[in-house]
Amino acid sequence: MHASIITIGDEILIGQIVDTNSAWMAQKLNEVGISVAEIRSVGDDKDQIICAIQELLKSTDYIFMTGGLGPTNDDITKKVLCEMLNCDLVLNQDALANVKELLGRRGIDINENNHNQAMVPHKAEVFVNILGTAPGMMFRFDKKLLFSMPGVPFEMQHLMTNHFIPQIKNSSVPQKIFHKTILTTGLPEAILAEKLSNWENSLPEDIKLAYLPSPGYIRLRLSLYDASDDLLKTLEHKVVELKSIIPNNFINDQNLNPDQLVAELLAKLNKTLSTAESCTGGKIASIITSRPGSSSIFKGSVVAYDNDVKIDVLGVDSVLVEKYGAVSSQVVEQMASGVRRLLKTDYALATSGIAGPDGGTPEKPVGTAWIALATPIKVVSRKLLLFKQREFNIIGASNAAILMLVDELRSSSLD
Amino acid sequence: MHASIITIGDEILIGQIVDTNSAWMAQKLNEVGISVAEIRSVGDDKDQIICAIQELLKSTDYIFMTGGLGPTNDDITKKVLCEMLNCDLVLNQDALANVKELLGRRGIDINENNHNQAMVPHKAEVFVNILGTAPGMMFRFDKKLLFSMPGVPFEMQHLMTNHFIPQIKNSSVPQKIFHKTILTTGLPEAILAEKLSNWENSLPEDIKLAYLPSPGYIRLRLSLYDASDDLLKTLEHKVVELKSIIPNNFINDQNLNPDQLVAELLAKLNKTLSTAESCTGGKIASIITSRPGSSSIFKGSVVAYDNDVKIDVLGVDSVLVEKYGAVSSQVVEQMASGVRRLLKTDYALATSGIAGPDGGTPEKPVGTAWIALATPIKVVSRKLLLFKQREFNIIGASNAAILMLVDELRSSSLD
Repeated sequence: MHASIITIGDEILIGQIVDTNSAWMAQKLNEVGISVAEIRSVGDDKDQIICAIQELLKSTDYIFMTGGLGPTNDDITKKVLCEMLNCDLVLNQDALANVKELLGRRGIDINENNHNQAMVPHKAEVFVNILGTAPGMMFRFDKKLLFSMPGVPFEMQHLMTNHFIPQIKNSSVPQKIFHKTILTTGLPEAILAEKLSNWENSLPEDIKLAYLPSPGYIRLRLSLYDASDDLLKTLEHKVVELKSIIPNNFINDQNLNPDQLVAELLAKLNKTLSTAESCTGGKIASIITSRPGSSSIFKGSVVAYDNDVKIDVLGVDSVLVEKYGAVSSQVVEQMASGVRRLLKTDYALATSGIAGPDGGTPEKPVGTAWIALATPIKVVSRKLLLFKQREFNIIGASNAAILMLVDELRSSSLD
Repeated sequence: MHASIITIGDEILIGQIVDTNSAWMAQKLNEVGISVAEIRSVGDDKDQIICAIQELLKSTDYIFMTGGLGPTNDDITKKVLCEMLNCDLVLNQDALANVKELLGRRGIDINENNHNQAMVPHKAEVFVNILGTAPGMMFRFDKKLLFSMPGVPFEMQHLMTNHFIPQIKNSSVPQKIFHKTILTTGLPEAILAEKLSNWENSLPEDIKLAYLPSPGYIRLRLSLYDASDDLLKTLEHKVVELKSIIPNNFINDQNLNPDQLVAELLAKLNKTLSTAESCTGGKIASIITSRPGSSSIFKGSVVAYDNDVKIDVLGVDSVLVEKYGAVSSQVVEQMASGVRRLLKTDYALATSGIAGPDGGTPEKPVGTAWIALATPIKVVSRKLLLFKQREFNIIGASNAAILMLVDELRSSSLD
């Protein structure tokens, strides 16, 4: 069974927002055995919306559509669906009750715009959206299904998780899709590919390999689109082979990103972490605390953007800052041990670098960064030579620091 | 002139990465007067790629394509283009010299995979990519142009900025696209729309209005797709009218997000900021430091995830934490004044809340957060009732805190 995704909104086509909904939906659909064949973004335009729906109804079994359901005049999805299906808007009592309940809680009286949120095409099957005023809707086209939902991410996620995915599970025999994702670090893409070339050629045709590079690490994804037990066994065997080819670069095969892995390892060892961040500006803390439950392993961070903060709060020796500069092994190591002591954690990570676009010198060009790790028994640091883009440099330094700790924790947990 | 975007890669269709390239490209294209009519994501699949190119060549003048140019076997874009254009791969000397230069700098010898990066379809016009081994390519189809570039964001951005956009500027007469984006806060979408209903109806047909809600604020976008001087004047007039209808909710009309605005206002007033973050976990610091030049206005942050850090580092009174809980006006105000004192800044923001999914109680459900602002003369705080999703709650609290400071700075700069 194949699905397609249509995201509607001029704000996507002028680049005012990044479409994060599609990736989220694709992931969830894959989990229940539905592969996504195509993702399209179109504007708030009747002809474009109708054209996309008609074309994708031909090539896919399910269409998931987000956007254009708000209370304002630029939201035209319902009107377009009515025209396409030759039907009228009717009031849905459940949706209206939900709108009243949502606004009532905030002490707001319902106005005409709110009331219109409960009007739906009469051919729609309605799913109440308890997180927002626009209901989810399902339309049947013979055996194919079209789902329409708001573009607000958490409302979309609520409708997918609680209504649409269960609906599909009931209506289809899923394909057996299986992805195995391996985290590697320390080898550039072309070198890794060269080392793995024989192994890759030995993969059966039904196992598809993809390289997914990120700043600081590369993920390898092995995919099966119609998995038999035999093929799953072969896959496991191939992963073992892979590990033996790059033992030092193979981090794990659990589809975990470095930050998930660090959280798991710290939890397992019952240890805590703090960070002292200069060039990463709180990014490491923000990545780690974005996951639920991080408070058990993460105590906090000192974002020491200014040198005074490094000296006054973290206790870095001002003589070292003077002599070696803030971007140096000496300073970053004192930052790590300083924050570890201050926040009383088992481990601490520190970063100091030149994220750019300005601030580079011939000796320390933009992209130069030092990262350090303090443990109960030692402090170590490493120099990074990243690229020239600020965003890349910040994420690259954050990932490298997290991976430095992953390395340390893996050896600790093997002890 | 209309463009379309094709992003290639199974990793997009299984939701393993979020496509941020399209938004970036769409923004840059709009700036030079090219509107984007459609964005499509397809898999690493010959038929899908060819079908997308052929369909979009019919409806648009330019196609911008990313992905599938890596050194590994899952990267098939060049092979597909050769087949479609009935031509061979040939070695490009400039591209090869670039590959050698890039790897040489890291002390790596060139291997076969690297060498293949310099092979291009012979019908391609080649643009050397100094940030990576895959060159940019341009193909002519009568008067239409197809651009192909790597999916790595900073490589794509380099090629767009330095090669493709200048190329297009030379080859087209841009449409006069004009967007005016107004930042509003404090009114939910349906209420805002109701207040603006008469004003919206009075807009000329050529001025298109869109509502773009974010956690904590709503942007209104007014768009002209073929702007005359008269229409531009009308637009300015309509913005003035809008401001008079919602004087307290109209923040600015400069297409600035709250974090850009705060950075501008602080720089203008020559003031500095620090943050003490509990539930936002470094997000405010990370948002502010993601912009170049932030070191002149931002000194740092204490991410006080653990209560001990609030007490020991920020000097919050442990009796207050005991009595009122960490999520309270008392504690968040002491966090703000504590970090302001510790980091010696003019202003400080603090957050403490329950981001979820766990940790809620009947009195303080998930989504409850307190934010505080400390200034040279006062400390104020405000309670937020956000929603139930962790990611939304973190961003919502971050934006609300930033907007609290915006409000304060706007009154200061008017003084």
